[in-house]
Amino acid sequence: MRKHELTVLKIGGSVITDKNGKMAARTKDIDRLAEEIHRSGTQSLIIVHGGGSFGHPSAQKYRIKEGFEDSSQKIGFSETHNVMTMLNGLLMACLIEHKVPAVSIAPSSCIITENGRISHFDDSVIINLLKMSFTPVLYGDAVLDTKRGFTILSGDQLVTSLAIRFNAERIVIGVDVNGLYDADPKTERTARILSHLNLEELKELQGQLCKPKSCDVTGGMLGKIVELLPAAEHCIPITLVNASKPENICRVLEGKKVEGTLIAKG
Amino acid sequence: MRKHELTVLKIGGSVITDKNGKMAARTKDIDRLAEEIHRSGTQSLIIVHGGGSFGHPSAQKYRIKEGFEDSSQKIGFSETHNVMTMLNGLLMACLIEHKVPAVSIAPSSCIITENGRISHFDDSVIINLLKMSFTPVLYGDAVLDTKRGFTILSGDQLVTSLAIRFNAERIVIGVDVNGLYDADPKTERTARILSHLNLEELKELQGQLCKPKSCDVTGGMLGKIVELLPAAEHCIPITLVNASKPENICRVLEGKKVEGTLIAKG
Repeated sequence: MRKHELTVLKIGGSVITDKNGKMAARTKDIDRLAEEIHRSGTQSLIIVHGGGSFGHPSAQKYRIKEGFEDSSQKIGFSETHNVMTMLNGLLMACLIEHKVPAVSIAPSSCIITENGRISHFDDSVIINLLKMSFTPVLYGDAVLDTKRGFTILSGDQLVTSLAIRFNAERIVIGVDVNGLYDADPKTERTARILSHLNLEELKELQGQLCKPKSCDVTGGMLGKIVELLPAAEHCIPITLVNASKPENICRVLEGKKVEGTLIAKG
Repeated sequence: MRKHELTVLKIGGSVITDKNGKMAARTKDIDRLAEEIHRSGTQSLIIVHGGGSFGHPSAQKYRIKEGFEDSSQKIGFSETHNVMTMLNGLLMACLIEHKVPAVSIAPSSCIITENGRISHFDDSVIINLLKMSFTPVLYGDAVLDTKRGFTILSGDQLVTSLAIRFNAERIVIGVDVNGLYDADPKTERTARILSHLNLEELKELQGQLCKPKSCDVTGGMLGKIVELLPAAEHCIPITLVNASKPENICRVLEGKKVEGTLIAKG
Protein backbone atom coordinates (compact mmCIF):
# COMPACT_ATOMS: atom_id res chain seq x y z
CA MET A 1 0.00 0.00 0.00
CA ARG A 2 1.56 3.31 -1.02
CA LYS A 3 1.58 6.01 1.61
CA HIS A 4 -0.06 8.60 -0.63
CA GLU A 5 -3.26 6.74 -1.09
CA LEU A 6 -5.29 5.51 1.78
CA THR A 7 -7.79 7.56 3.77
CA VAL A 8 -9.35 6.13 6.91
CA LEU A 9 -12.67 7.87 7.52
CA LYS A 10 -14.44 7.61 10.85
CA ILE A 11 -18.12 8.50 11.04
CA GLY A 12 -19.14 9.08 14.62
CA GLY A 13 -22.16 7.31 16.06
CA SER A 14 -23.69 10.65 17.00
CA VAL A 15 -23.58 11.74 13.34
CA ILE A 16 -25.61 8.82 12.03
CA THR A 17 -27.84 8.15 15.04
CA ASP A 18 -29.75 10.22 17.58
CA LYS A 19 -28.18 9.33 20.90
CA ASN A 20 -31.31 10.43 22.73
CA GLY A 21 -33.37 7.75 21.06
CA LYS A 22 -32.95 3.97 21.00
CA MET A 23 -31.89 2.60 17.62
CA ALA A 24 -32.78 5.98 16.14
CA ALA A 25 -30.90 6.20 12.84
CA ARG A 26 -30.46 9.55 11.13
CA THR A 27 -31.31 8.03 7.77
CA LYS A 28 -31.15 11.33 5.86
CA ASP A 29 -27.63 11.98 7.15
CA ILE A 30 -26.57 8.42 6.34
CA ASP A 31 -27.79 8.85 2.78
CA ARG A 32 -26.22 12.32 2.48
CA LEU A 33 -22.85 11.03 3.71
CA ALA A 34 -22.96 8.08 1.29
CA GLU A 35 -23.61 10.50 -1.57
CA GLU A 36 -20.80 12.82 -0.42
CA ILE A 37 -18.37 9.89 -0.19
CA HIS A 38 -19.35 8.82 -3.70
CA ARG A 39 -19.06 12.36 -5.08
CA SER A 40 -15.62 12.90 -3.53
CA GLY A 41 -14.34 10.14 -5.80
CA THR A 42 -11.99 8.85 -3.07
CA GLN A 43 -10.38 5.73 -4.50
CA SER A 44 -8.57 4.21 -1.54
CA LEU A 45 -10.78 4.39 1.48
CA ILE A 46 -11.63 2.51 4.65
CA ILE A 47 -14.73 3.61 6.56
CA VAL A 48 -15.28 2.97 10.27
CA HIS A 49 -18.46 3.99 12.05
CA GLY A 50 -19.56 4.20 15.64
CA GLY A 51 -22.51 2.66 17.43
CA GLY A 52 -24.49 5.64 18.71
CA SER A 53 -27.97 4.73 19.88
CA PHE A 54 -27.70 1.28 18.30
CA GLY A 55 -24.71 -0.27 20.04
CA HIS A 56 -24.45 1.75 23.23
CA PRO A 57 -27.76 1.00 25.00
CA SER A 58 -27.29 -2.80 24.74
CA ALA A 59 -23.59 -2.55 25.58
CA GLN A 60 -24.33 -0.52 28.69
CA LYS A 61 -27.35 -2.55 29.78
CA TYR A 62 -25.36 -5.79 29.74
CA ARG A 63 -22.00 -4.29 30.77
CA ILE A 64 -20.32 -5.84 27.73
CA LYS A 65 -17.21 -3.64 27.90
CA GLU A 66 -16.46 -4.79 31.44
CA GLY A 67 -16.38 -8.42 30.28
CA PHE A 68 -18.09 -11.72 30.95
CA GLU A 69 -19.26 -12.02 34.55
CA ASP A 70 -22.44 -14.06 34.37
CA SER A 71 -24.32 -15.98 31.73
CA SER A 72 -27.17 -13.48 31.56
CA GLN A 73 -24.79 -11.21 29.67
CA LYS A 74 -24.42 -13.66 26.81
CA ILE A 75 -27.63 -12.68 25.09
CA GLY A 76 -26.50 -9.06 25.56
CA PHE A 77 -23.30 -9.77 23.65
CA SER A 78 -25.39 -11.33 20.85
CA GLU A 79 -27.76 -8.37 20.88
CA THR A 80 -25.03 -5.71 20.89
CA HIS A 81 -23.31 -7.24 17.87
CA ASN A 82 -26.63 -7.70 16.11
CA VAL A 83 -27.81 -4.10 16.49
CA MET A 84 -24.41 -2.94 15.23
CA THR A 85 -24.86 -5.05 12.09
CA MET A 86 -28.28 -3.44 11.67
CA LEU A 87 -26.85 0.09 11.81
CA ASN A 88 -24.05 -1.02 9.51
CA GLY A 89 -26.64 -2.43 7.12
CA LEU A 90 -28.34 0.97 6.83
CA LEU A 91 -25.04 2.62 5.88
CA MET A 92 -24.09 -0.21 3.52
CA ALA A 93 -27.40 0.00 1.67
CA CYS A 94 -26.91 3.77 1.10
CA LEU A 95 -23.27 3.40 0.03
CA ILE A 96 -24.19 0.67 -2.47
CA GLU A 97 -27.18 2.69 -3.68
CA HIS A 98 -24.70 5.50 -4.45
CA LYS A 99 -22.42 3.03 -6.26
CA VAL A 100 -19.66 2.98 -3.66
CA PRO A 101 -18.22 -0.59 -3.87
CA ALA A 102 -18.42 -1.02 -0.11
CA VAL A 103 -17.98 -4.34 1.68
CA SER A 104 -18.70 -4.66 5.38
CA ILE A 105 -16.11 -6.38 7.54
CA ALA A 106 -17.53 -7.53 10.85
CA PRO A 107 -14.84 -6.77 13.46
CA SER A 108 -16.14 -9.52 15.74
CA SER A 109 -15.59 -12.07 12.93
CA CYS A 110 -11.86 -11.40 12.58
CA ILE A 111 -10.63 -9.49 15.66
CA ILE A 112 -9.99 -10.66 19.23
CA THR A 113 -8.81 -8.30 21.95
CA GLU A 114 -6.76 -8.79 25.12
CA ASN A 115 -7.96 -6.57 27.96
CA GLY A 116 -9.70 -4.39 25.44
CA ARG A 117 -6.75 -3.95 23.07
CA ILE A 118 -6.63 -5.63 19.64
CA SER A 119 -4.40 -8.71 19.97
CA HIS A 120 -5.54 -10.79 16.98
CA PHE A 121 -6.62 -9.22 13.69
CA ASP A 122 -6.93 -11.31 10.54
CA ASP A 123 -6.72 -8.54 7.96
CA SER A 124 -6.26 -10.80 4.91
CA VAL A 125 -9.64 -9.90 3.47
CA ILE A 126 -9.14 -6.14 4.00
CA ILE A 127 -5.73 -6.28 2.28
CA ASN A 128 -7.29 -7.92 -0.75
CA LEU A 129 -10.34 -5.66 -0.78
CA LEU A 130 -8.06 -2.59 -0.88
CA LYS A 131 -6.00 -4.13 -3.71
CA MET A 132 -9.23 -4.54 -5.68
CA SER A 133 -10.33 -0.96 -4.86
CA PHE A 134 -13.25 -2.00 -2.73
CA THR A 135 -14.13 0.16 0.28
CA PRO A 136 -14.02 -1.92 3.48
CA VAL A 137 -16.47 -0.71 6.12
CA LEU A 138 -15.94 -1.60 9.78
CA TYR A 139 -17.57 -0.47 13.00
CA GLY A 140 -17.34 -0.39 16.74
CA ASP A 141 -18.41 -3.86 17.82
CA ALA A 142 -18.82 -6.36 20.63
CA VAL A 143 -15.78 -8.65 20.29
CA LEU A 144 -14.27 -11.61 22.11
CA ASP A 145 -11.47 -10.85 24.57
CA THR A 146 -8.85 -13.35 25.76
CA LYS A 147 -8.89 -11.99 29.33
CA ARG A 148 -12.41 -10.64 29.79
CA GLY A 149 -14.34 -13.14 27.67
CA PHE A 150 -15.73 -10.29 25.63
CA THR A 151 -15.62 -6.52 25.51
CA ILE A 152 -16.38 -3.49 23.33
CA LEU A 153 -13.93 -2.53 20.60
CA SER A 154 -14.37 1.17 19.88
CA GLY A 155 -14.43 2.53 16.36
CA ASP A 156 -11.63 4.91 17.40
CA GLN A 157 -9.26 2.10 18.37
CA LEU A 158 -10.08 0.43 15.05
CA VAL A 159 -9.34 3.63 13.10
CA THR A 160 -5.85 3.95 14.60
CA SER A 161 -5.11 0.26 14.18
CA LEU A 162 -6.18 0.30 10.51
CA ALA A 163 -4.39 3.57 9.70
CA ILE A 164 -1.06 2.34 11.15
CA ARG A 165 -1.47 -1.18 9.74
CA PHE A 166 -2.12 0.06 6.21
CA ASN A 167 0.12 3.12 6.41
CA ALA A 168 -2.69 5.55 5.69
CA GLU A 169 -2.03 8.97 4.24
CA ARG A 170 -4.55 10.57 6.56
CA ILE A 171 -7.36 10.04 9.02
CA VAL A 172 -10.62 11.99 8.84
CA ILE A 173 -12.80 11.94 11.95
CA GLY A 174 -16.37 13.02 11.30
CA VAL A 175 -18.05 14.18 14.51
CA ASP A 176 -21.12 16.27 15.35
CA VAL A 177 -19.16 19.29 16.60
CA ASN A 178 -16.97 21.74 14.68
CA GLY A 179 -13.66 20.41 15.97
CA LEU A 180 -11.66 20.26 19.16
CA TYR A 181 -12.30 23.16 21.53
CA ASP A 182 -9.94 24.62 24.14
CA ALA A 183 -12.75 24.31 26.69
CA ASP A 184 -16.19 22.74 26.87
CA PRO A 185 -18.31 24.78 24.42
CA LYS A 186 -21.49 23.63 26.17
CA THR A 187 -20.55 25.36 29.43
CA GLU A 188 -17.94 27.99 28.46
CA ARG A 189 -19.01 30.70 26.06
CA THR A 190 -15.42 31.68 25.32
CA ALA A 191 -14.51 28.20 24.08
CA ARG A 192 -12.73 28.33 20.72
CA ILE A 193 -11.86 25.73 18.12
CA LEU A 194 -8.23 24.70 17.97
CA SER A 195 -7.63 24.72 14.23
CA HIS A 196 -4.17 23.16 14.41
CA LEU A 197 -2.49 21.07 17.05
CA ASN A 198 0.85 19.34 17.12
CA LEU A 199 1.55 16.26 19.17
CA GLU A 200 2.96 18.13 22.16
CA GLU A 201 -0.02 20.47 22.31
CA LEU A 202 -2.35 17.51 22.01
CA LYS A 203 -0.69 15.72 24.92
CA GLU A 204 -0.90 18.86 27.04
CA LEU A 205 -4.55 19.28 26.21
CA GLN A 206 -5.26 15.70 27.09
CA GLY A 207 -5.13 16.41 30.80
CA GLN A 208 -7.30 19.49 30.54
CA LEU A 209 -10.08 18.06 28.44
CA CYS A 210 -13.30 17.61 30.32
CA LYS A 211 -15.35 14.49 29.84
CA PRO A 212 -18.61 15.08 28.02
CA LYS A 213 -21.78 14.84 30.08
CA SER A 214 -23.41 12.44 27.68
CA CYS A 215 -22.64 8.87 28.57
CA ASP A 216 -20.55 7.00 26.02
CA VAL A 217 -19.24 3.49 26.59
CA THR A 218 -16.43 4.01 24.10
CA GLY A 219 -15.28 7.20 25.80
CA GLY A 220 -16.09 10.75 24.75
CA MET A 221 -13.76 13.22 23.07
CA LEU A 222 -11.05 12.47 25.62
CA GLY A 223 -11.13 8.78 24.87
CA LYS A 224 -11.12 9.61 21.17
CA ILE A 225 -7.96 11.72 21.48
CA VAL A 226 -6.18 9.06 23.55
CA GLU A 227 -7.03 6.45 20.92
CA LEU A 228 -5.82 8.64 18.05
CA LEU A 229 -2.47 9.62 19.62
CA PRO A 230 -0.55 6.57 18.29
CA ALA A 231 -1.63 7.45 14.74
CA ALA A 232 -0.38 11.02 15.16
CA GLU A 233 2.88 9.59 16.52
CA HIS A 234 3.12 7.55 13.31
CA CYS A 235 3.00 10.86 11.40
CA ILE A 236 -0.52 10.27 10.12
CA PRO A 237 -2.35 13.63 10.08
CA ILE A 238 -5.81 13.62 11.61
CA THR A 239 -8.59 16.00 10.65
CA LEU A 240 -11.57 16.37 12.96
CA VAL A 241 -14.51 17.79 11.07
CA ASN A 242 -18.23 18.29 11.59
CA ALA A 243 -19.82 15.54 9.49
CA SER A 244 -23.32 16.66 10.43
CA LYS A 245 -22.80 19.75 8.25
CA PRO A 246 -23.53 19.05 4.57
CA GLU A 247 -20.56 19.15 2.19
CA ASN A 248 -17.90 18.92 4.94
CA ILE A 249 -17.06 15.27 4.36
CA CYS A 250 -17.06 15.63 0.58
CA ARG A 251 -14.81 18.70 0.80
CA VAL A 252 -12.35 17.24 3.27
CA LEU A 253 -12.10 14.00 1.24
CA GLU A 254 -11.39 16.11 -1.86
CA GLY A 255 -8.56 17.79 0.07
CA LYS A 256 -10.33 21.15 0.31
CA LYS A 257 -10.17 23.40 3.35
CA VAL A 258 -12.91 22.90 5.93
CA GLU A 259 -13.41 24.28 9.42
CA GLY A 260 -12.14 21.77 11.93
CA THR A 261 -9.05 20.65 13.83
CA LEU A 262 -5.93 19.31 12.16
CA ILE A 263 -3.70 17.20 14.35
CA ALA A 264 -0.21 16.61 12.95
CA LYS A 265 3.02 15.47 14.55
CA GLY A 266 5.23 18.40 13.59
CA MET B 1 -14.02 -29.92 21.05
CA ARG B 2 -15.34 -33.34 22.09
CA LYS B 3 -16.79 -35.47 19.35
CA HIS B 4 -20.07 -36.08 21.15
CA GLU B 5 -21.14 -32.51 21.24
CA LEU B 6 -21.29 -30.37 18.19
CA THR B 7 -24.18 -30.24 15.73
CA VAL B 8 -23.82 -28.32 12.49
CA LEU B 9 -27.28 -27.31 11.30
CA LYS B 10 -27.86 -26.07 7.77
CA ILE B 11 -31.05 -24.19 7.00
CA GLY B 12 -31.64 -24.11 3.27
CA GLY B 13 -32.33 -20.82 1.53
CA SER B 14 -35.59 -22.22 0.18
CA VAL B 15 -36.82 -22.88 3.73
CA ILE B 16 -36.41 -19.28 4.92
CA THR B 17 -37.08 -17.44 1.65
CA ASP B 18 -39.49 -17.74 -1.26
CA LYS B 19 -37.29 -18.40 -4.26
CA ASN B 20 -39.99 -17.13 -6.60
CA GLY B 21 -39.82 -13.65 -5.07
CA LYS B 22 -36.92 -11.25 -4.72
CA MET B 23 -35.73 -10.79 -1.16
CA ALA B 24 -38.90 -12.52 -0.02
CA ALA B 25 -38.23 -13.78 3.48
CA ARG B 26 -40.47 -16.40 5.03
CA THR B 27 -40.49 -14.52 8.34
CA LYS B 28 -42.94 -16.89 10.06
CA ASP B 29 -40.74 -19.86 9.23
CA ILE B 30 -37.64 -18.00 10.41
CA ASP B 31 -39.32 -17.27 13.72
CA ARG B 32 -40.66 -20.82 14.03
CA LEU B 33 -37.21 -22.30 13.39
CA ALA B 34 -35.59 -19.97 15.93
CA GLU B 35 -38.14 -21.09 18.51
CA GLU B 36 -37.59 -24.76 17.65
CA ILE B 37 -33.83 -24.35 17.95
CA HIS B 38 -34.28 -22.71 21.35
CA ARG B 39 -36.74 -25.36 22.54
CA SER B 40 -34.47 -28.23 21.49
CA GLY B 41 -31.96 -27.00 24.07
CA THR B 42 -29.02 -27.86 21.80
CA GLN B 43 -25.94 -26.65 23.65
CA SER B 44 -23.18 -26.98 21.07
CA LEU B 45 -24.42 -25.77 17.74
CA ILE B 46 -23.25 -24.00 14.61
CA ILE B 47 -25.92 -22.76 12.21
CA VAL B 48 -25.33 -22.14 8.51
CA HIS B 49 -28.02 -20.77 6.22
CA GLY B 50 -28.40 -20.37 2.49
CA GLY B 51 -29.18 -17.31 0.40
CA GLY B 52 -32.43 -18.15 -1.34
CA SER B 53 -34.10 -15.17 -2.95
CA PHE B 54 -31.75 -12.78 -1.14
CA GLY B 55 -28.31 -13.83 -2.33
CA HIS B 56 -29.06 -15.67 -5.56
CA PRO B 57 -30.61 -12.94 -7.74
CA SER B 58 -27.68 -10.53 -7.19
CA ALA B 59 -25.13 -13.32 -7.50
CA GLN B 60 -26.61 -14.43 -10.81
CA LYS B 61 -27.17 -10.95 -12.20
CA TYR B 62 -23.53 -10.01 -11.67
CA ARG B 63 -22.04 -13.48 -12.29
CA ILE B 64 -20.24 -13.35 -8.94
CA LYS B 65 -19.54 -17.09 -8.80
CA GLU B 66 -17.68 -16.99 -12.11
CA GLY B 67 -15.28 -14.37 -10.75
CA PHE B 68 -14.10 -10.86 -11.45
CA GLU B 69 -14.19 -10.06 -15.14
CA ASP B 70 -15.06 -6.38 -15.32
CA SER B 71 -15.44 -3.54 -12.86
CA SER B 72 -19.20 -3.34 -13.27
CA GLN B 73 -19.38 -6.52 -11.19
CA LYS B 74 -17.84 -4.86 -8.15
CA ILE B 75 -21.03 -3.22 -7.00
CA GLY B 76 -22.67 -6.62 -7.51
CA PHE B 77 -20.21 -8.22 -5.11
CA SER B 78 -21.02 -5.49 -2.56
CA GLU B 79 -24.73 -5.98 -3.13
CA THR B 80 -24.64 -9.78 -2.89
CA HIS B 81 -22.80 -9.69 0.43
CA ASN B 82 -25.08 -6.96 1.72
CA VAL B 83 -28.35 -8.75 0.96
CA MET B 84 -26.94 -11.86 2.64
CA THR B 85 -26.27 -9.85 5.80
CA MET B 86 -29.86 -8.61 5.62
CA LEU B 87 -31.27 -12.15 5.47
CA ASN B 88 -28.84 -13.16 8.22
CA GLY B 89 -30.06 -10.21 10.29
CA LEU B 90 -33.66 -11.46 10.12
CA LEU B 91 -32.61 -14.87 11.43
CA MET B 92 -30.32 -13.36 14.08
CA ALA B 93 -33.07 -11.11 15.41
CA CYS B 94 -35.42 -14.11 15.82
CA LEU B 95 -32.75 -16.30 17.43
CA ILE B 96 -31.87 -13.57 19.92
CA GLU B 97 -35.58 -12.88 20.57
CA HIS B 98 -35.88 -16.56 21.51
CA LYS B 99 -32.82 -16.26 23.78
CA VAL B 100 -30.46 -18.31 21.62
CA PRO B 101 -27.01 -16.71 22.25
CA ALA B 102 -26.30 -16.50 18.54
CA VAL B 103 -23.44 -14.51 17.03
CA SER B 104 -23.17 -14.00 13.30
CA ILE B 105 -19.83 -14.68 11.64
CA ALA B 106 -19.55 -13.06 8.23
CA PRO B 107 -17.79 -15.64 6.00
CA SER B 108 -16.47 -12.90 3.73
CA SER B 109 -14.74 -11.27 6.74
CA CYS B 110 -12.63 -14.32 7.59
CA ILE B 111 -12.63 -16.72 4.61
CA ILE B 112 -10.85 -16.55 1.25
CA THR B 113 -11.23 -19.23 -1.41
CA GLU B 114 -8.99 -20.48 -4.20
CA ASN B 115 -10.94 -21.41 -7.30
CA GLY B 116 -14.07 -21.63 -5.22
CA ARG B 117 -12.63 -23.83 -2.46
CA ILE B 118 -11.87 -22.53 1.04
CA SER B 119 -8.12 -21.86 1.22
CA HIS B 120 -7.94 -19.40 4.13
CA PHE B 121 -10.25 -19.59 7.13
CA ASP B 122 -9.49 -17.67 10.31
CA ASP B 123 -11.65 -19.65 12.72
CA SER B 124 -10.20 -18.17 15.94
CA VAL B 125 -13.42 -16.40 16.81
CA ILE B 126 -15.60 -19.47 16.14
CA ILE B 127 -13.33 -21.64 18.33
CA ASN B 128 -13.75 -19.20 21.21
CA LEU B 129 -17.48 -18.71 20.64
CA LEU B 130 -17.99 -22.49 20.89
CA LYS B 131 -15.90 -22.65 24.08
CA MET B 132 -18.19 -20.00 25.58
CA SER B 133 -21.32 -21.86 24.40
CA PHE B 134 -22.36 -19.20 21.94
CA THR B 135 -24.02 -20.33 18.71
CA PRO B 136 -22.04 -19.10 15.68
CA VAL B 137 -24.23 -18.43 12.65
CA LEU B 138 -22.69 -18.38 9.16
CA TYR B 139 -24.16 -18.25 5.69
CA GLY B 140 -23.49 -18.69 2.01
CA ASP B 141 -21.70 -15.51 1.00
CA ALA B 142 -19.84 -13.60 -1.68
CA VAL B 143 -16.16 -14.03 -0.77
CA LEU B 144 -12.78 -13.06 -2.18
CA ASP B 145 -10.97 -15.70 -4.23
CA THR B 146 -7.21 -15.79 -4.86
CA LYS B 147 -7.67 -16.95 -8.48
CA ARG B 148 -11.02 -15.51 -9.54
CA GLY B 149 -10.94 -12.26 -7.58
CA PHE B 150 -14.20 -13.21 -5.94
CA THR B 151 -16.76 -15.99 -6.02
CA ILE B 152 -19.71 -17.50 -4.17
CA LEU B 153 -19.05 -19.73 -1.17
CA SER B 154 -22.02 -22.03 -0.75
CA GLY B 155 -23.52 -22.76 2.63
CA ASP B 156 -23.04 -26.46 1.87
CA GLN B 157 -19.27 -26.16 1.43
CA LEU B 158 -19.19 -24.21 4.70
CA VAL B 159 -21.17 -26.90 6.53
CA THR B 160 -18.72 -29.63 5.55
CA SER B 161 -15.70 -27.47 6.30
CA LEU B 162 -17.00 -26.54 9.75
CA ALA B 163 -18.13 -30.08 10.61
CA ILE B 164 -14.73 -31.58 9.74
CA ARG B 165 -12.77 -28.69 11.28
CA PHE B 166 -14.61 -28.92 14.60
CA ASN B 167 -15.11 -32.68 14.56
CA ALA B 168 -18.90 -32.43 14.69
CA GLU B 169 -21.01 -35.27 16.03
CA ARG B 170 -23.57 -34.81 13.28
CA ILE B 171 -24.82 -32.63 10.46
CA VAL B 172 -28.50 -31.77 10.04
CA ILE B 173 -29.54 -30.39 6.67
CA GLY B 174 -32.91 -28.66 6.72
CA VAL B 175 -34.42 -28.52 3.24
CA ASP B 176 -37.92 -27.94 1.83
CA VAL B 177 -38.45 -31.55 0.71
CA ASN B 178 -38.87 -34.71 2.77
CA GLY B 179 -35.43 -36.11 2.06
CA LEU B 180 -33.44 -37.57 -0.77
CA TYR B 181 -35.56 -39.34 -3.40
CA ASP B 182 -34.54 -42.16 -5.72
CA ALA B 183 -35.93 -40.12 -8.62
CA ASP B 184 -37.24 -36.63 -9.19
CA PRO B 185 -40.51 -36.50 -7.20
CA LYS B 186 -41.73 -33.56 -9.29
CA THR B 187 -41.78 -35.63 -12.48
CA GLU B 188 -41.88 -39.25 -11.33
CA ARG B 189 -44.86 -40.34 -9.28
CA THR B 190 -43.11 -43.49 -8.10
CA ALA B 191 -40.22 -41.55 -6.55
CA ARG B 192 -39.55 -42.72 -2.98
CA ILE B 193 -37.54 -41.30 -0.12
CA LEU B 194 -34.27 -43.07 0.61
CA SER B 195 -34.41 -43.29 4.39
CA HIS B 196 -30.87 -44.57 4.82
CA LEU B 197 -27.85 -44.38 2.57
CA ASN B 198 -24.28 -45.46 3.10
CA LEU B 199 -21.36 -43.84 1.40
CA GLU B 200 -21.21 -46.34 -1.48
CA GLU B 201 -24.90 -45.97 -2.23
CA LEU B 202 -24.55 -42.21 -2.10
CA LYS B 203 -21.71 -42.23 -4.59
CA GLU B 204 -23.70 -44.48 -6.93
CA LEU B 205 -26.70 -42.20 -6.67
CA GLN B 206 -24.59 -39.18 -7.44
CA GLY B 207 -24.42 -39.99 -11.11
CA GLN B 208 -28.12 -40.71 -11.37
CA LEU B 209 -29.44 -37.59 -9.66
CA CYS B 210 -31.07 -35.18 -11.97
CA LYS B 211 -30.40 -31.49 -11.63
CA PRO B 212 -33.38 -29.52 -10.37
CA LYS B 213 -35.14 -27.31 -12.87
CA SER B 214 -35.04 -24.31 -10.57
CA CYS B 215 -31.89 -22.32 -11.06
CA ASP B 216 -29.53 -22.29 -8.09
CA VAL B 217 -26.06 -20.74 -8.24
CA THR B 218 -24.82 -22.91 -5.38
CA GLY B 219 -25.97 -26.11 -7.06
CA GLY B 220 -29.18 -27.99 -6.35
CA MET B 221 -29.49 -31.29 -4.53
CA LEU B 222 -26.67 -32.78 -6.61
CA GLY B 223 -24.30 -30.01 -5.64
CA LYS B 224 -25.41 -30.43 -2.04
CA ILE B 225 -24.57 -34.13 -2.03
CA VAL B 226 -21.18 -33.58 -3.65
CA GLU B 227 -20.34 -30.97 -1.01
CA LEU B 228 -21.44 -33.22 1.85
CA LEU B 229 -19.52 -36.33 0.74
CA PRO B 230 -16.25 -35.39 2.52
CA ALA B 231 -18.14 -35.07 5.81
CA ALA B 232 -19.67 -38.51 5.36
CA GLU B 233 -16.19 -39.84 4.59
CA HIS B 234 -15.06 -38.36 7.92
CA CYS B 235 -17.74 -40.53 9.57
CA ILE B 236 -20.00 -37.60 10.39
CA PRO B 237 -23.61 -38.74 9.95
CA ILE B 238 -25.82 -36.43 7.93
CA THR B 239 -29.58 -36.16 8.33
CA LEU B 240 -31.60 -34.50 5.57
CA VAL B 241 -34.93 -33.37 6.93
CA ASN B 242 -37.84 -31.18 5.84
CA ALA B 243 -37.35 -27.98 7.85
CA SER B 244 -40.46 -26.42 6.35
CA LYS B 245 -42.55 -28.87 8.39
CA PRO B 246 -43.11 -27.65 11.95
CA GLU B 247 -41.43 -29.63 14.73
CA ASN B 248 -39.01 -31.49 12.43
CA ILE B 249 -35.96 -29.39 13.34
CA CYS B 250 -36.76 -29.44 17.05
CA ARG B 251 -37.29 -33.22 16.98
CA VAL B 252 -34.16 -34.02 14.99
CA LEU B 253 -32.04 -31.74 17.21
CA GLU B 254 -33.45 -33.56 20.25
CA GLY B 255 -32.33 -36.85 18.66
CA LYS B 256 -35.87 -38.05 17.98
CA LYS B 257 -36.89 -39.95 14.87
CA VAL B 258 -38.09 -37.85 11.94
CA GLU B 259 -38.91 -38.70 8.35
CA GLY B 260 -35.89 -37.93 6.19
CA THR B 261 -32.65 -39.36 4.83
CA LEU B 262 -29.78 -40.48 7.02
CA ILE B 263 -26.41 -40.63 5.30
CA ALA B 264 -23.76 -42.53 7.24
CA LYS B 265 -20.45 -44.06 6.18
CA GLY B 266 -21.04 -47.62 7.32
